Amino acid sequence: MRIITRVKEMQAEISALKAQGRSIGFVPTMGFLHEGHITLLTRAKKENEILVLSIFVNPLQFGPGEDLDAYPRDFDRDRAAAENAGVDYIFYPSAEEMYPKPPSVKVTVQERTDVLCGASRSGHFDGVATVLTKLFHIIMPDRVYFGLKDAQQAAVVDGLIKDFHFPVEMVPVPTVREEDGLAKSSRNVYLDQGERRQAAHLYKSLQEAREAIEKGERNPETLIEMVRAHLNNHCEAAVDYVSIYSYPDLKPLRTLTGNVIIALAVKFSKARLIDNLILEVE
Amino acid sequence: MRIITRVKEMQAEISALKAQGRSIGFVPTMGFLHEGHITLLTRAKKENEILVLSIFVNPLQFGPGEDLDAYPRDFDRDRAAAENAGVDYIFYPSAEEMYPKPPSVKVTVQERTDVLCGASRSGHFDGVATVLTKLFHIIMPDRVYFGLKDAQQAAVVDGLIKDFHFPVEMVPVPTVREEDGLAKSSRNVYLDQGERRQAAHLYKSLQEAREAIEKGERNPETLIEMVRAHLNNHCEAAVDYVSIYSYPDLKPLRTLTGNVIIALAVKFSKARLIDNLILEVE
Repeated sequence: MRIITRVKEMQAEISALKAQGRSIGFVPTMGFLHEGHITLLTRAKKENEILVLSIFVNPLQFGPGEDLDAYPRDFDRDRAAAENAGVDYIFYPSAEEMYPKPPSVKVTVQERTDVLCGASRSGHFDGVATVLTKLFHIIMPDRVYFGLKDAQQAAVVDGLIKDFHFPVEMVPVPTVREEDGLAKSSRNVYLDQGERRQAAHLYKSLQEAREAIEKGERNPETLIEMVRAHLNNHCEAAVDYVSIYSYPDLKPLRTLTGNVIIALAVKFSKARLIDNLILEVE
Repeated sequence: MRIITRVKEMQAEISALKAQGRSIGFVPTMGFLHEGHITLLTRAKKENEILVLSIFVNPLQFGPGEDLDAYPRDFDRDRAAAENAGVDYIFYPSAEEMYPKPPSVKVTVQERTDVLCGASRSGHFDGVATVLTKLFHIIMPDRVYFGLKDAQQAAVVDGLIKDFHFPVEMVPVPTVREEDGLAKSSRNVYLDQGERRQAAHLYKSLQEAREAIEKGERNPETLIEMVRAHLNNHCEAAVDYVSIYSYPDLKPLRTLTGNVIIALAVKFSKARLIDNLILEVE
């Protein structure tokens, strides 16, 4: 495994590999790897000859209220986990290497951002799309892997790749769950014992909605109320939102049809958890 | 020579060529080819194994007051000129093919745009940068060719390629001139005989500035006044601007040093002409 910190060196290395016809799988991260990342790496390892992991805490995607400096970092642990997962290259640039001077261009995301978590994070997805555009040109991957737990991010990346015709295949990877259905997240450790038990109901509430849809329910308001009621009945937590949209367009629906997402965010005492269900409705 | 109108087909064709290790030269245009374009094509033909010309009148770079529909088009003439210049592929998509639905992302240009001609064309360079980002992903060129007559566009493209780390080399091509120094332009035909003679003074005024710099003049205000006076003394035309900036950053200078541009725009009765001089000052 090689660790590369310079843009030009990484680009030269990848160019040589591509000239040999090797396929490149890419997992972009901000580091502090958890099980979700490992799932992406394991999948990417199977489907590509070369596996590249990037670790870059991207200042551009942090808002004024969000503490960039407090973002957790542990490169030694990440390096060990990457080695274990069969990573061939870690691309690990500094902020100065990625943004040597004020950028003369940025990507502006015009759709899919003003709903769900994006509604309260103005500019966040511009930062995500800008750094991914840069990383895609540096790593030149054949396939890039994103978890569906952050379904809005996956939708934005899908739009970025399709609208800009990036010669990259986006591989959406299903959410990894605990035995009781709770989506794995580094934030789950902030739950106390009671909250941890209650948190299983995020998934259960989505399953209840799925069953109702299978039985024929197509009204988004009815389904949203059903999920809200389930959460309120089983969790001592504030429901931030329960929403239903088309996916990946994230447009409001008057009746469920096509690809849809039911997404929710819930605030426990020390952790805000998100989960979602994406399904095709006939 | 092949003419391709579909994004996917063009991308597949280029991918196959790149897998064979062929180098790709690219000249993006809005068609209605003139001598300036032919110069770019000739240069690109020499330096690459495969030559791709795109013809696409990009609606995104036209402002509300600018008439997209009136933009001149003559595909048959362009096709003949391209064949003559040794073009291997013309990429000739429709607007629907390039923008099948409202784009979810665009490129925003944050620097180098609010001066020179860009000052009065808000959003123009966003449109240019967005379509080039798309075209670069479709054509995947090794080298892309831009004329230095539109020096601001070349500067914006330079920023786009560097900041986004596009694996593309930008080749700036010097302005082609008539014998008396007038920069070649399709707009020159709108000059009457007297204006055509006067128009040679655009270049002469820039040469006068060059000589003054060679003799030691470093004050931008003095040089700008010198060029203005020359134009006013020799042309019955309105001077739109004479400006000096660093190049390609297009930042104001208190004293001339490093790479600088002297740029001017002049309005004759039926034609607005631009010209510039880029030089390195010790």
